[in-house]
Amino acid sequence: MIVKVKEPLESEYSLIRSGQIVFTYFHFASYKPLLEAMVKSKAICIAYETVEDSLGRLPLLIPMSEVAGRMSIQEGAKYLEKPLGGKGILLGGVPGVEPAKVVILGGGVVGTEAAKIASGMGSKVYILDVNLNRLKHLSEILPKNVIPLFSNQYNINRLIKDADIVIGGVLIPGGKAPKLITREMLKEMQDGVVLVDVAVDQGGCIETCRPTTHEAPTFVIDGVVHYCVANMPGAVPYTSTVALNNATFGYVKKIADKGWELACKEDKGLCRGLNVVKGKIVYEAVANAFNRPYKAIC
Amino acid sequence: MIVKVKEPLESEYSLIRSGQIVFTYFHFASYKPLLEAMVKSKAICIAYETVEDSLGRLPLLIPMSEVAGRMSIQEGAKYLEKPLGGKGILLGGVPGVEPAKVVILGGGVVGTEAAKIASGMGSKVYILDVNLNRLKHLSEILPKNVIPLFSNQYNINRLIKDADIVIGGVLIPGGKAPKLITREMLKEMQDGVVLVDVAVDQGGCIETCRPTTHEAPTFVIDGVVHYCVANMPGAVPYTSTVALNNATFGYVKKIADKGWELACKEDKGLCRGLNVVKGKIVYEAVANAFNRPYKAIC
Amino acid sequence: MIVKVKEPLESEYSLIRSGQIVFTYFHFASYKPLLEAMVKSKAICIAYETVEDSLGRLPLLIPMSEVAGRMSIQEGAKYLEKPLGGKGILLGGVPGVEPAKVVILGGGVVGTEAAKIASGMGSKVYILDVNLNRLKHLSEILPKNVIPLFSNQYNINRLIKDADIVIGGVLIPGGKAPKLITREMLKEMQDGVVLVDVAVDQGGCIETCRPTTHEAPTFVIDGVVHYCVANMPGAVPYTSTVALNNATFGYVKKIADKGWELACKEDKGLCRGLNVVKGKIVYEAVANAFNRPYKAIC
Amino acid sequence: MIVKVKEPLESEYSLIRSGQIVFTYFHFASYKPLLEAMVKSKAICIAYETVEDSLGRLPLLIPMSEVAGRMSIQEGAKYLEKPLGGKGILLGGVPGVEPAKVVILGGGVVGTEAAKIASGMGSKVYILDVNLNRLKHLSEILPKNVIPLFSNQYNINRLIKDADIVIGGVLIPGGKAPKLITREMLKEMQDGVVLVDVAVDQGGCIETCRPTTHEAPTFVIDGVVHYCVANMPGAVPYTSTVALNNATFGYVKKIADKGWELACKEDKGLCRGLNVVKGKIVYEAVANAFNRPYKAIC
Amino acid sequence: MIVKVKEPLESEYSLIRSGQIVFTYFHFASYKPLLEAMVKSKAICIAYETVEDSLGRLPLLIPMSEVAGRMSIQEGAKYLEKPLGGKGILLGGVPGVEPAKVVILGGGVVGTEAAKIASGMGSKVYILDVNLNRLKHLSEILPKNVIPLFSNQYNINRLIKDADIVIGGVLIPGGKAPKLITREMLKEMQDGVVLVDVAVDQGGCIETCRPTTHEAPTFVIDGVVHYCVANMPGAVPYTSTVALNNATFGYVKKIADKGWELACKEDKGLCRGLNVVKGKIVYEAVANAFNRPYKAIC
Amino acid sequence: MIVKVKEPLESEYSLIRSGQIVFTYFHFASYKPLLEAMVKSKAICIAYETVEDSLGRLPLLIPMSEVAGRMSIQEGAKYLEKPLGGKGILLGGVPGVEPAKVVILGGGVVGTEAAKIASGMGSKVYILDVNLNRLKHLSEILPKNVIPLFSNQYNINRLIKDADIVIGGVLIPGGKAPKLITREMLKEMQDGVVLVDVAVDQGGCIETCRPTTHEAPTFVIDGVVHYCVANMPGAVPYTSTVALNNATFGYVKKIADKGWELACKEDKGLCRGLNVVKGKIVYEAVANAFNRPYKAIC
Repeated sequence: MIVKVKEPLESEYSLIRSGQIVFTYFHFASYKPLLEAMVKSKAICIAYETVEDSLGRLPLLIPMSEVAGRMSIQEGAKYLEKPLGGKGILLGGVPGVEPAKVVILGGGVVGTEAAKIASGMGSKVYILDVNLNRLKHLSEILPKNVIPLFSNQYNINRLIKDADIVIGGVLIPGGKAPKLITREMLKEMQDGVVLVDVAVDQGGCIETCRPTTHEAPTFVIDGVVHYCVANMPGAVPYTSTVALNNATFGYVKKIADKGWELACKEDKGLCRGLNVVKGKIVYEAVANAFNRPYKAIC
Repeated sequence: MIVKVKEPLESEYSLIRSGQIVFTYFHFASYKPLLEAMVKSKAICIAYETVEDSLGRLPLLIPMSEVAGRMSIQEGAKYLEKPLGGKGILLGGVPGVEPAKVVILGGGVVGTEAAKIASGMGSKVYILDVNLNRLKHLSEILPKNVIPLFSNQYNINRLIKDADIVIGGVLIPGGKAPKLITREMLKEMQDGVVLVDVAVDQGGCIETCRPTTHEAPTFVIDGVVHYCVANMPGAVPYTSTVALNNATFGYVKKIADKGWELACKEDKGLCRGLNVVKGKIVYEAVANAFNRPYKAIC
Repeated sequence: MIVKVKEPLESEYSLIRSGQIVFTYFHFASYKPLLEAMVKSKAICIAYETVEDSLGRLPLLIPMSEVAGRMSIQEGAKYLEKPLGGKGILLGGVPGVEPAKVVILGGGVVGTEAAKIASGMGSKVYILDVNLNRLKHLSEILPKNVIPLFSNQYNINRLIKDADIVIGGVLIPGGKAPKLITREMLKEMQDGVVLVDVAVDQGGCIETCRPTTHEAPTFVIDGVVHYCVANMPGAVPYTSTVALNNATFGYVKKIADKGWELACKEDKGLCRGLNVVKGKIVYEAVANAFNRPYKAIC
Repeated sequence: MIVKVKEPLESEYSLIRSGQIVFTYFHFASYKPLLEAMVKSKAICIAYETVEDSLGRLPLLIPMSEVAGRMSIQEGAKYLEKPLGGKGILLGGVPGVEPAKVVILGGGVVGTEAAKIASGMGSKVYILDVNLNRLKHLSEILPKNVIPLFSNQYNINRLIKDADIVIGGVLIPGGKAPKLITREMLKEMQDGVVLVDVAVDQGGCIETCRPTTHEAPTFVIDGVVHYCVANMPGAVPYTSTVALNNATFGYVKKIADKGWELACKEDKGLCRGLNVVKGKIVYEAVANAFNRPYKAIC
Repeated sequence: MIVKVKEPLESEYSLIRSGQIVFTYFHFASYKPLLEAMVKSKAICIAYETVEDSLGRLPLLIPMSEVAGRMSIQEGAKYLEKPLGGKGILLGGVPGVEPAKVVILGGGVVGTEAAKIASGMGSKVYILDVNLNRLKHLSEILPKNVIPLFSNQYNINRLIKDADIVIGGVLIPGGKAPKLITREMLKEMQDGVVLVDVAVDQGGCIETCRPTTHEAPTFVIDGVVHYCVANMPGAVPYTSTVALNNATFGYVKKIADKGWELACKEDKGLCRGLNVVKGKIVYEAVANAFNRPYKAIC
Repeated sequence: MIVKVKEPLESEYSLIRSGQIVFTYFHFASYKPLLEAMVKSKAICIAYETVEDSLGRLPLLIPMSEVAGRMSIQEGAKYLEKPLGGKGILLGGVPGVEPAKVVILGGGVVGTEAAKIASGMGSKVYILDVNLNRLKHLSEILPKNVIPLFSNQYNINRLIKDADIVIGGVLIPGGKAPKLITREMLKEMQDGVVLVDVAVDQGGCIETCRPTTHEAPTFVIDGVVHYCVANMPGAVPYTSTVALNNATFGYVKKIADKGWELACKEDKGLCRGLNVVKGKIVYEAVANAFNRPYKAIC
């Protein structure tokens, strides 16, 4: 889950001055004017999205993935309502009536949090992943109405035939997620199914998804409702902000206590967050994205 | 939860002929033209909403209350989103961030089903009722994030001060539910709180509620979002229809096998469903509602 | 679940003398020589199988139904093994592999206990009943991998198509259970499915079942494995005996303390257990079964 | 759990040609003719049983251990039935009657999966291990009727005195498991207890166990029923095959995409699977087992 | 659980005047001076302890039994500490060490609430009752570390041999509870076991118990610690008072709204609470206790 | 949790002779006479409290932290009783009455075990930690009435305002824990709140705590009850001893089998336990504490 609420306004970032430390989401690779402004400003730009923890995970993206994963089911349940284009099924059913079937692609942060909410609401949940150790872990911590299944084309094809909600939660960090649901496969699904692609802003794992907004969150192809809001956590700013602050606080404190140079020296993962420093691009992928010179710093 | 999808159209009910058995929701008291047409038709009108089981419960209303109770949380969660007027809080929070607080007024069918979904989504749930035996039962079957509490003005006032969602699920069968949340009390609530009044079509237990539709489900008073759709189950017709059929099937079979007269003779609760028979009003409350003569039949 | 370990031997019951109180399972209707011997003996015969509690339930049959219901899944799981004729599926699957699907017909004592074990072993469980109140109760006390569903021909037909185990737990007390699974329907099932009919000794609810023994418990029709042992609890005599004694103890004490006449006078349900008293048949259904005179006693 | 369905037939492996890649279970050390045939064939033999993951675990044995662990309780429950030699106890008891007591030796894959099923069936479960961190983990993910206990002679002796089922799930990878249950200790157990030794094909941890088959799975010593089938997963081939394929698929894909040499170069754990390559023995333990020359390859 | 904080002081009750309604715990049978003063006062005395609900239960005693039942385990755990005379065992153990064993006599309100806390703290719990329906219900709502067992001398004798805590929660309403634990049986128990007799103020079900106070709550006989505080809820007055008010509020409102005469006329159970009315003793058992004339009023 | 039952008596340790291996808790830094005696004795002193496992954790302190963490709630619940100075609240409430609120500072071993017991007893639990990965793990293994929250001054201040029990479970290994609850903050708390500082013997995280004993475990400041027993596990010696033996056994066996020198050579973590060897101080912190020469040995 990449978090990018909106294109930042020039009026906002033009105020940044040389030597200032800016610690936030940048996503330089996707918006060149911002990169150029930051290079020009000679500020110290530490990007949330590239900070790493000691295991190489992205600790400042995880909270947003948690929020989006949990929200994805809330959205799926809502858009399953008939007046909104869905099949007209209540997620958890009622005693005597079968509940909805939710298929979650990916057993990472997004998928796991989605599975918690989907099972809590009483649906039948399938969560698919290729990592068997992860599947076993999920089988041990999730409720019994969640079935962890090996992810392969056979299982996906089989399960979507009578799925009510499909959650796309597959993300290859720094890479393109595979298109697990193709345009062709929509035809196998029933009318009114809801797809939620949580990774839509990175291309997503559902071929027919393209980013939408909270104002116009869904569109329909082949009778299948697509919910592909690019910045899902933006709808719950109270929760998202606190979650993000919990994660950034330790880094902010380190930078404030020690200065950015010492802080980055002592914490290699924080150093990985440096993207632009005093006019130089110091994160290789950003430099490469625009064929600009790269200067190693960590 | 009274279920009345829409005013029935004359074009629909004008086709009914003498001696036909019509077994459906009528709600005669709230729509005089329908009553008059049925009296004129000389049909046998058995109203879902007045059929009783052997304990005096209303078995053909319960499935709709179950659907509405479960849906109420789905709606509350959705309208808690900032772009829809809510506080911008995610119902279940995420690890490290406190979840939302849901206050459910009434521990009957609606409230219990609401509590199941609210707890399943990870919120902190309070369910209030004046029946201690019921509270003990709820404490034994609901998850541990549900606190069953005695319902009194003190507890309600105290809890709504920092509630995020309030569900009105109080219904006095055949009577007017008390106004547990008054206009005045809205001022004590925070901006962006969501109220869902499931019993709105019977007056409801929230003073400021008035019926809305799935097309325009909410309105705001004093910063508080009101969701008061009169026919909530109508949004999930697949689930609602199957749920209702499960409940009506046994009665339909009896009527078909034995004829309505014998069926009603053998099952006093079904007999209570008779409202209009061959031109006579046979349900006292309906007769009284329009000062019409009443003929006892059960 | 009728419990009848074997035809009683004449050598056993020929020792009974006039005035003796015999409190045990008799099942007179199904074995005339025993009835005649008891009539001749002039003993007091109180039959476990017809004693009733204050709600008209059969408290001395319930423990055996509990044992048989729990055992039914143990048998289903075992005979699902390939070398025993089954599909070669492990009931609970393993992480990454889908578990088996268990369909339980009837949500009474047998079905509920079966559902507890089947869900505990990790399978996907459907339990079907026509009583919606019962289904709601089951949804509140059983684990989340059990789906309580309304029982009708549509649901049964749909579910057995890919079921792995089908449990017959339907019993109409004092009547013939309907044949919910007919010979014809076996063709819709997959090879290696296991049927367990717990009520087989009363005709059962699976048309193709006929009683078998622990020595040769199964037979195969149309590729479907039938487990139809008539006295399932007999395989776990330790548990069954203690369970039965728990239930009979109170009655035995009453009879011992007060004599059978006073005990039966004070406890109408115990009185219903009287079948043959001093040479007279005092239980109507037994008398009728053999066109013998009946003398009312309770 | 070593998986070896049967001695491979010469007619099967004589068809293998030079340069072919054979990726399967070999267990060369236990069957010399196969080793010699493979050496002679000049094929590339990658043995499932020696492939390692990045933590040194054996990912192609784990799925079989999961299957066997879960099955072990199914077998224990079945053979506890009286007609099969057991105590005649129902694993989960019924309300009012104490359930059976299951003692599981080893808290690894086999023991953990056994504990899940045993607790799900309602028995009282003790799981013993010497690793306290593992015991804490088990206490956090297993149901409350499982008691994780430190494994020592005192506890084992104490627990088996009134155990109903004992599961042997101790395996020292690449070594001989200790004999935790000796011949002598059988005398302390009650008649009709069921022992299941899941690691029997590696010597097992129960002294009196010797491998049996699905055709004749049990034998009795000192009144104690021994279930020691060498290839337990073979009875549920559908589940076992899918589970195994889930685990091997990634390796097969790597080998197919890159050729075995590059695949083994990039994945050291896969390289550990190489046993015989073009006529040379490249796995040290296999070479040593027959005093043959060993050629290092990883 | 009879609640009687202390002997009421004359200075307190001497202020009561003719015609006043006094609605509180009286327990007249156990304190004659109070009875005489009330008779003399000509007040209307409605005793909490004899009010009944429509099923004949005592709704104003239940809340106190709930409090005492839950507290009983808290006390048991505390007095199991070595410095307080106990065995020096931690109730829930820790991973690797076996938890304590708690035996609860009686599956009514007290026993059920005790079982909830004891299981929540991680101990092994046995709850004994003679009512099999109740045991089944308990098995369905309590955690899996609670074993519901039939109550008989054999089971009690067997279980207390290695019990750590024994809770006496047996109460025969209006009668003397049987002495399930006799003086003799203490010898079979281990040193440092803790007995908690919740019904001590009615004689209790443990022969050696005699009422103690919160100031000196325990005494030791044969090495067994006895906790027998007569008014357990008095130690948690906040919880007890709110719990009691929840239960009495409806009655108080009825009396206030309608006057005691009409209220008692309409609610037969409340009428059962009348003990002394305008100088007459109107509750038979109280009159009998002191050989005073009784005047029927309900 | 440092475990130090009492100052060791000279009469005890004066018996130790040269070359003897003493493997126990020493805590040399806090008791100089013991250090000097051991130096003089020329014994081999291996201190439980400094042995490390392969991840740098302290495996011989963990069992004591587990015991103390679980006990902390037992103590909190008891001292919350009115006669002992508490608020007079029952930890779990009863149906209809709100349960107590427990705030646990620190999500490590102590805090996690405390949360298990507090939630098991039915209270509302907040557990605070700065490690988000740990909070997520806790949210996945603890019951739903536990809310894992990010630990910061804002949350602590907010939560203690209406907390009933506060558990101090923060420990900086080898360092001073921060004073999360200051003297000033007590004024914000309600009268009768109970504080339990489990790390009191290392200074603790509650400013006003000073070590107490099992004989006089509590004192009151500003109306707040402080429970600060320095050696909590000492009250449950049976459990503590077995827990400790489980942890030490493997080390004892290694030392016995191989001698201390080889054992310490092969296990670097055990080597870290060496404090005094043949008259030399070989643990740096101990040497530094008394400005004595230090000799490296591992």
